[in-house]
Amino acid sequence: MSVRTPDPDPDWTPGPENIQPPNQNQGWLSDVELADIRRRLPILYIEAVPVRVDGLGQVVELGVLLRARPTGEMTRTLVSGRVLYGETLRDALFRHLEKDLGPMAFPQLPASPVPFSVAEYFPLPGITAFTDERQHAVSLAYVVPVTGTCDPRQDALEITWMTPLEAASEAVSAEMEGGRGSLLRMALASVGQLR
Amino acid sequence: MSVRTPDPDPDWTPGPENIQPPNQNQGWLSDVELADIRRRLPILYIEAVPVRVDGLGQVVELGVLLRARPTGEMTRTLVSGRVLYGETLRDALFRHLEKDLGPMAFPQLPASPVPFSVAEYFPLPGITAFTDERQHAVSLAYVVPVTGTCDPRQDALEITWMTPLEAASEAVSAEMEGGRGSLLRMALASVGQLR
Amino acid sequence: MSVRTPDPDPDWTPGPENIQPPNQNQGWLSDVELADIRRRLPILYIEAVPVRVDGLGQVVELGVLLRARPTGEMTRTLVSGRVLYGETLRDALFRHLEKDLGPMAFPQLPASPVPFSVAEYFPLPGITAFTDERQHAVSLAYVVPVTGTCDPRQDALEITWMTPLEAASEAVSAEMEGGRGSLLRMALASVGQLR
Amino acid sequence: MSVRTPDPDPDWTPGPENIQPPNQNQGWLSDVELADIRRRLPILYIEAVPVRVDGLGQVVELGVLLRARPTGEMTRTLVSGRVLYGETLRDALFRHLEKDLGPMAFPQLPASPVPFSVAEYFPLPGITAFTDERQHAVSLAYVVPVTGTCDPRQDALEITWMTPLEAASEAVSAEMEGGRGSLLRMALASVGQLR
Repeated sequence: MSVRTPDPDPDWTPGPENIQPPNQNQGWLSDVELADIRRRLPILYIEAVPVRVDGLGQVVELGVLLRARPTGEMTRTLVSGRVLYGETLRDALFRHLEKDLGPMAFPQLPASPVPFSVAEYFPLPGITAFTDERQHAVSLAYVVPVTGTCDPRQDALEITWMTPLEAASEAVSAEMEGGRGSLLRMALASVGQLR
Repeated sequence: MSVRTPDPDPDWTPGPENIQPPNQNQGWLSDVELADIRRRLPILYIEAVPVRVDGLGQVVELGVLLRARPTGEMTRTLVSGRVLYGETLRDALFRHLEKDLGPMAFPQLPASPVPFSVAEYFPLPGITAFTDERQHAVSLAYVVPVTGTCDPRQDALEITWMTPLEAASEAVSAEMEGGRGSLLRMALASVGQLR
Repeated sequence: MSVRTPDPDPDWTPGPENIQPPNQNQGWLSDVELADIRRRLPILYIEAVPVRVDGLGQVVELGVLLRARPTGEMTRTLVSGRVLYGETLRDALFRHLEKDLGPMAFPQLPASPVPFSVAEYFPLPGITAFTDERQHAVSLAYVVPVTGTCDPRQDALEITWMTPLEAASEAVSAEMEGGRGSLLRMALASVGQLR
Repeated sequence: MSVRTPDPDPDWTPGPENIQPPNQNQGWLSDVELADIRRRLPILYIEAVPVRVDGLGQVVELGVLLRARPTGEMTRTLVSGRVLYGETLRDALFRHLEKDLGPMAFPQLPASPVPFSVAEYFPLPGITAFTDERQHAVSLAYVVPVTGTCDPRQDALEITWMTPLEAASEAVSAEMEGGRGSLLRMALASVGQLR
């Protein structure tokens, strides 16, 4: 089985509505270069668990992405992607939230740069709870309240909203790519919502 | 010198626009009872540093309260107050934010219940950085973005907005009650804005 | 069913090997006074999850207390107890660790005063995940590595060491008092060991 | 002025007392390759503030490295270095602590993988508080108690122990490389020791 990578295909899809990526010239990597670098350096990622909160800030729903893979298989994942050269973590977080949730999600990025957890993905299983067959990736994971409408721009992507109880279930964990069920539970724990 | 207490005069001021406090009957304490209990138990407080953030969640301004004391002296403090019997931390946080910033501040309470720091106030100085001559208080401190208009309802209270640099300055620290300059700097550190 | 209180019987049991409690005179409460106060104020607690770590600091085992109740029923709980008047959180944490694990446990108290979670216990269920029929308690919870030998001094107490997987199991959660299975899972999440 | 890089010269100096680095073949980078990659990808680092704690876990001293640069200039820095391909964060943290503090430092690595702050270093100043003229580096920073003897193995390196008050001073901040005075203060804040 091929474990999907944390970032949907290209890290950067230029388009009419996008601002230019930072430092495009030197930071841009061809597929071949990226594949090479992925076997030589840990690659820095951000991941986000979008949530809806009530009037007192308490998490009532979590957003999990549902993705159709080329094989037709459906898997669940989180908002995630690479941090580019010259890009701040906040910029990367905002860019990937917009890429995966659409421009009307209105995410409230955290004031603190400290992630709720750091997930280490290795090609081989057993080192940590997380695997990514393409690479050694280290991912800073954040819980991000969204107040607008989430509408994934990629055809093969849908967002499912779950209660904390559903999100922590074995059934959902089993469908999450690369061990991210564990990360979702840690997100719940970080907001005091893990039972 | 008389060090002010973390909570402005009464912990609860009933009024036409207020909902009833939780568990009023058994949790209500007369002044004499409260004064007695304050010398026998640590009292639980919440404190909040209201902040304004930019579109990427980065803190650009911090709100510090300026208070005229009965003696005419001006001191600076944070949003703070007691947690009442039967009240959740979120409820207490919301209640004291509304009490000190008015009903139009629209605070975004944190999704996580974990404070950025825990401040321990003792009547005698030297045990920690924090003192409160009235009591032994333990305060859970949070950074809270506000998106609306802050308009303290108490006559003797004003809010001053400062940049991170000003908030960390010696001058501001020296004016903060009970050692809260230290807490303000820790708030800045927690959001990655302490230089 | 009677839900046990977070602290084993008396908060302070003077004995030949103990130093005197801080501020004994004014902070000491008779049973009647304590029972009264418990219905009028939230009471501040600390809780600790003792752990064993490997050479790289990774948690390999967690210690859970097994207690025989007067009814003969066995329940599981965590190290916990009240913070006394005049006592710092560190002192309270150390005192309760020694009380529940014995004097040879050699706990490594955390450098940071920030708890991994804050548990709110209410007499009535449904407000949070945690209940304590005696009182409204707010508990600051810490993970504490121990390097020595744990030997509970109270007759009715034993310590059981579990792997992270066991500690997160439904079976263990069901045996934990007052909803502390949830707190144990949050402790695991905070150390990156929740699957 | 040339700002020093977070890691002392080579990231890995094989020697008789060292175990082999992980995945040496594919993860090893020549100087030319590393210089190239440093302009194309953010590079993942760990940083550590070694501390001495008292019996209750409270930080009493912080260790800052003093380095003679080839120009004869002295600068201060923290324990830091690159995370290699295939290496866990804990392994990297342990390796760099041993490299900079010697094999008898006996560091107590944190149970939690969550850093106290994430420092973003850019070649150009002004984006964050941190600069590194060689690269865009993202550094996960930890406070690490050490219980043994610190004896830097590199000739040009010394360790200075400071009280929290000294470590937070303007004088020390001014001597720290790449803006790390700010990181040192955030470390102090994270352990409740920033005044």
